[in-house]
Amino acid sequence: MQANTIPVTDSAYTYPLLIKQLLHTPLAVAPDQEIVYADKRRHTYREFARRINRLGHTLTRLGVQGGSTVAVMDWDSHRYLECFFSVPMLGAVLQMVNVRLSPDQILYTLNHAEADVLLVNRDFLPVLEEIKPKLTTVKTFVLLSDEDMSLPEGFTGEYESLLDACPDVFDFPDFDENTRATTFYTTGTTGLPKGVYFSHRQLVLHTLSVSNTLALSFKQGRLHRDDVYMPLTPMFHVHAWGLPYIATLAGIKQVYPGRYQPEAILKLIDKEKVSFTHSVPTILNMLLVAPDSHNVDLSGLKMIIGGSALTSALAKAALERGIDVFAGYGMSETCPVVALAQLSTEDLGEDDEVATRLCAGRPVSLVDLRTVDAKMDTCPRDGKTVGEVVVRAPWTTMGYLNNSDASEQLWSGGWLHTQDIGHIDPRGYLQITDRIKDVIKTGGEWVSSIEVEELICRHPAVAETAVIGVPDDKWGERPLALVVVRPEFVGKFSVEELRAHMLAFAEQGLISKYAVPERVVFVEELAKTSVGKLNKLALRTQYR
Amino acid sequence: MQANTIPVTDSAYTYPLLIKQLLHTPLAVAPDQEIVYADKRRHTYREFARRINRLGHTLTRLGVQGGSTVAVMDWDSHRYLECFFSVPMLGAVLQMVNVRLSPDQILYTLNHAEADVLLVNRDFLPVLEEIKPKLTTVKTFVLLSDEDMSLPEGFTGEYESLLDACPDVFDFPDFDENTRATTFYTTGTTGLPKGVYFSHRQLVLHTLSVSNTLALSFKQGRLHRDDVYMPLTPMFHVHAWGLPYIATLAGIKQVYPGRYQPEAILKLIDKEKVSFTHSVPTILNMLLVAPDSHNVDLSGLKMIIGGSALTSALAKAALERGIDVFAGYGMSETCPVVALAQLSTEDLGEDDEVATRLCAGRPVSLVDLRTVDAKMDTCPRDGKTVGEVVVRAPWTTMGYLNNSDASEQLWSGGWLHTQDIGHIDPRGYLQITDRIKDVIKTGGEWVSSIEVEELICRHPAVAETAVIGVPDDKWGERPLALVVVRPEFVGKFSVEELRAHMLAFAEQGLISKYAVPERVVFVEELAKTSVGKLNKLALRTQYR
Repeated sequence: MQANTIPVTDSAYTYPLLIKQLLHTPLAVAPDQEIVYADKRRHTYREFARRINRLGHTLTRLGVQGGSTVAVMDWDSHRYLECFFSVPMLGAVLQMVNVRLSPDQILYTLNHAEADVLLVNRDFLPVLEEIKPKLTTVKTFVLLSDEDMSLPEGFTGEYESLLDACPDVFDFPDFDENTRATTFYTTGTTGLPKGVYFSHRQLVLHTLSVSNTLALSFKQGRLHRDDVYMPLTPMFHVHAWGLPYIATLAGIKQVYPGRYQPEAILKLIDKEKVSFTHSVPTILNMLLVAPDSHNVDLSGLKMIIGGSALTSALAKAALERGIDVFAGYGMSETCPVVALAQLSTEDLGEDDEVATRLCAGRPVSLVDLRTVDAKMDTCPRDGKTVGEVVVRAPWTTMGYLNNSDASEQLWSGGWLHTQDIGHIDPRGYLQITDRIKDVIKTGGEWVSSIEVEELICRHPAVAETAVIGVPDDKWGERPLALVVVRPEFVGKFSVEELRAHMLAFAEQGLISKYAVPERVVFVEELAKTSVGKLNKLALRTQYR
Repeated sequence: MQANTIPVTDSAYTYPLLIKQLLHTPLAVAPDQEIVYADKRRHTYREFARRINRLGHTLTRLGVQGGSTVAVMDWDSHRYLECFFSVPMLGAVLQMVNVRLSPDQILYTLNHAEADVLLVNRDFLPVLEEIKPKLTTVKTFVLLSDEDMSLPEGFTGEYESLLDACPDVFDFPDFDENTRATTFYTTGTTGLPKGVYFSHRQLVLHTLSVSNTLALSFKQGRLHRDDVYMPLTPMFHVHAWGLPYIATLAGIKQVYPGRYQPEAILKLIDKEKVSFTHSVPTILNMLLVAPDSHNVDLSGLKMIIGGSALTSALAKAALERGIDVFAGYGMSETCPVVALAQLSTEDLGEDDEVATRLCAGRPVSLVDLRTVDAKMDTCPRDGKTVGEVVVRAPWTTMGYLNNSDASEQLWSGGWLHTQDIGHIDPRGYLQITDRIKDVIKTGGEWVSSIEVEELICRHPAVAETAVIGVPDDKWGERPLALVVVRPEFVGKFSVEELRAHMLAFAEQGLISKYAVPERVVFVEELAKTSVGKLNKLALRTQYR
């Protein structure tokens, strides 16, 4: 096609989409808005901007320049937020280190990303001690600590003191919007962690589109300028879902809770009037069952749930407390948000409403999300036909860092492959039924392990379950259910009762008969990955 | 700075920001939503998409390709909306012809833009007849008509018949996001019309950012998915402020009123439950004073006002009817929206609230908006210090088409010069006090003609006024007030009364004494430009 790009006047400002551009509006319209760090600190956006500038000077003095990598190991803090801005605004790369990984894995990711500078919270000094001799690229260490302490050996300085020593005006340069801004590592159940990465342009577009989708909702799950935001998925996990950037652009009050401790979190929600957060089911459950949970009014709190599937039981428990809980969908490779389970205003009735809140949701603005069959043909949006979920969005990772095989596999056929299996209904809602690898192939049919798990969980005696496929001579595979029984039911609940519970669903047509597991094993716990997801690979090996 | 752009996997989809990408979400989540054309037609978004495809075929058959220019002369219609998408989605340029220009000016803009194809509403056939012999580039004419009529000579076909003859699937290609998508001509008070132009990327970013800013408001002036949108600033005027793109992305019901006729508009608002619109003061006034206005409930209608300043009297009249009226700020060169006068939730008291609704507003997401002095230094945000308003945004025109002198002037110093004078307060609200050329320089001081006009208008006898500077030997310039008296006051209102009215404001300190005009002339009408703004250049020539 004939090119016809716009003529650009020499002196015109072509406006690259850079993270620094997210600061114009909040500083113009909400300079006195607050940023709060646990019960330890609060300051205005105006001060936040000054601190970003001081950090720019600090890092420059430490030798950081365009192309450097600055790694952070911290709990959710005002410092981390400052790094979200200042590091990429220098043209450097912010590496968010997953502190839940094993020391060996942390070492691997720091070396693989070629981190130059490491900012590390005192809580992780023991881990650092262990891996420090094997760090191949990190030369500079900065301490993050809420209390005064002497500087560990080999450290250049402590964050606050370094900032105090710098001027509060810094001129962050313009550069190519496709410059790498952030990186972090995703851990599957197999192989080494893989690095994903995002450019300035991608983060700005993720911010605008996700914010837009959240804000346009008439009532349910909507974000607005009077909300108070606090993350409950950590900042090292896919930019805390990008919400810190969204909250900043909107000029919203932000609260960072430090290390997640249910009582402290409940106090912060209460005191700071937190109204918007995102979390994983485990944390939500912790908040609901904490001893002082009922002393805190949680009604009006909006909470996106992701990471692993929200069960209807947990969703109902949250709704009963007045929490506007709904699922989001995405993964490390997608920055992460690509879909949100926002409700339309039509009245669906309670069961349908809960089911809609639990599903993966509808695509965020600009996202082209489809389910495809093995030939990459698009499946009909009939709410039944399952296929692999593939995505195109302006903010997906363009590959895995220095891993071209995995990159080509991720992008096979020009679509990002999520490896999730699901179906889309005519209203646009995506329902994930399984992971490609976790589908149970039995007698020529596909059984969704997640659907079976969801039904098992409806029994009050069940605390947790994992359903896996085990080899079977006759059927190829058969489902095996591993069940953790709630303490109060131990010894009072039998495999036969569980079978009866499941067969009743089969009779109602909610599940096919061949999907009901004959084999049920009561276990004390289930193998999990470092981010708390079921480790089905390990379970399959264990129970094969 | 060392370049460090992200590595891109060969098969990865790099997602250019193209207008076609705005269609993914609405077609996934709101395929049954409606698009309404006056009392003549309604269809779903699903059908809208099919029609965009048919139009793609139609235009391709007519020879349109990447780089072609397709001009449209139509009232606000479903057809125009289809052109907003289909023409740029082909890689062609949509020229929105300002049908209020004189035939000579229309001719000039069509020739200057080198239009290849012209889609023209039957109402404009007389104009076309007049200019057709002098059109240098248009070779193909398509008729737009709501009623059956025979095809005029030289026309290739009628829009609906051409669409009917084409398949409803079309594969719109990907191309560079900096491809020119739209163009139109802005008419100042001097010289020939100047062409501004916008790329796909710019229109997508304008859509996301303006939508985001509108939607994030807690209550006042907020857009949401359950709104019903109808333009009341024409589609040929800066893409109807970009709202058709915003409404489409959000999957909102859209109503296009055809030619603006107050009674028909009121009926549409009533019948289709229109809840979001944008307009100029003249149209708002027409709706409020129309004979059947009070039969229609206008409460709950949100209306952005732009184009010319909203007076407090008109704003109050609208608020009394329950219309949530507030100003927007921008110009043809800025796509157009760069600021919106949304209120915060704090209670300002009635007068302050009205004043805030009237001002130019706060910058839209990503917009860097400043006031600068003659040396281009940024003025303090103190709500007093005036300077020229300059802007950087991701969607401003990169120049004027084939007019490098004007382009360099527009972008002098790397900032887009609005030629508006104003001040910004600590909450971020911009107040325009004048046009650079309309400032009255008297005794070494600057007097804002707009401020003086606003105060004159507060007198109930005044229908309209223009204040201009006229040469004065002693003071350099002195203000002269030209006043149109309301019919019911003619002969009952004197120059002395007006002077007394103004001197009272001077005594209250609202205006300086030297800003009160000694000379007041009652006139029957005031010279206007083609878009209905005061033509102060003509007035200055006339009353010099």
